Amino acid sequence: MSDDHPTNGLDDVVHQKHRLGILTIAAESKRVEFGYLREALDLTAGNLSRHLTVLVDAGLLTMEKGYDGKRPRTWVGITRSGRAALHKEISALRALVARHDS
Amino acid sequence: MSDDHPTNGLDDVVHQKHRLGILTIAAESKRVEFGYLREALDLTAGNLSRHLTVLVDAGLLTMEKGYDGKRPRTWVGITRSGRAALHKEISALRALVARHDS
Repeated sequence: MSDDHPTNGLDDVVHQKHRLGILTIAAESKRVEFGYLREALDLTAGNLSRHLTVLVDAGLLTMEKGYDGKRPRTWVGITRSGRAALHKEISALRALVARHDS
Repeated sequence: MSDDHPTNGLDDVVHQKHRLGILTIAAESKRVEFGYLREALDLTAGNLSRHLTVLVDAGLLTMEKGYDGKRPRTWVGITRSGRAALHKEISALRALVARHDS
């Protein structure tokens, strides 16, 4: 019975609201720029960096530093594991919403 | 733009996976017993107590201690604010799932 409830299928690394936002946005394109994420999720640079580190360390994202002209840029991409983890989270959330609506 | 992303509408008090589980189950009936929650969410008594305290302090749940025969029991009920907060969370999750599926 303990595995039945949809929230038991949630992983804190992915479920945390800002990390869930980062992964959702990263899943929508090949790569996404740090500043874009910061603005879209209304985060400070430090806070965003910390969450990105957690996701990179978990193998869910890659980070690449480079230049756009002379401006330094950080690009973030979702890994295959990241897509799988997000898919699992979204499936659990879908089940939770369905249970709530029933 | 910063308010557009569905995860920006999530509140950490409600979004945390175990608290989300507690609120979802509490919303399904008039009151729910501590041991039932513990088993359904696969939590230790200490961990469940800590999350219940956060939710009671936020005004989202009430806790009532009593007896079932000679056995002490703790009953948990969701408040009107709790239902509203859960509804807001579920709406944001629904938007997130829809965005992911689109």
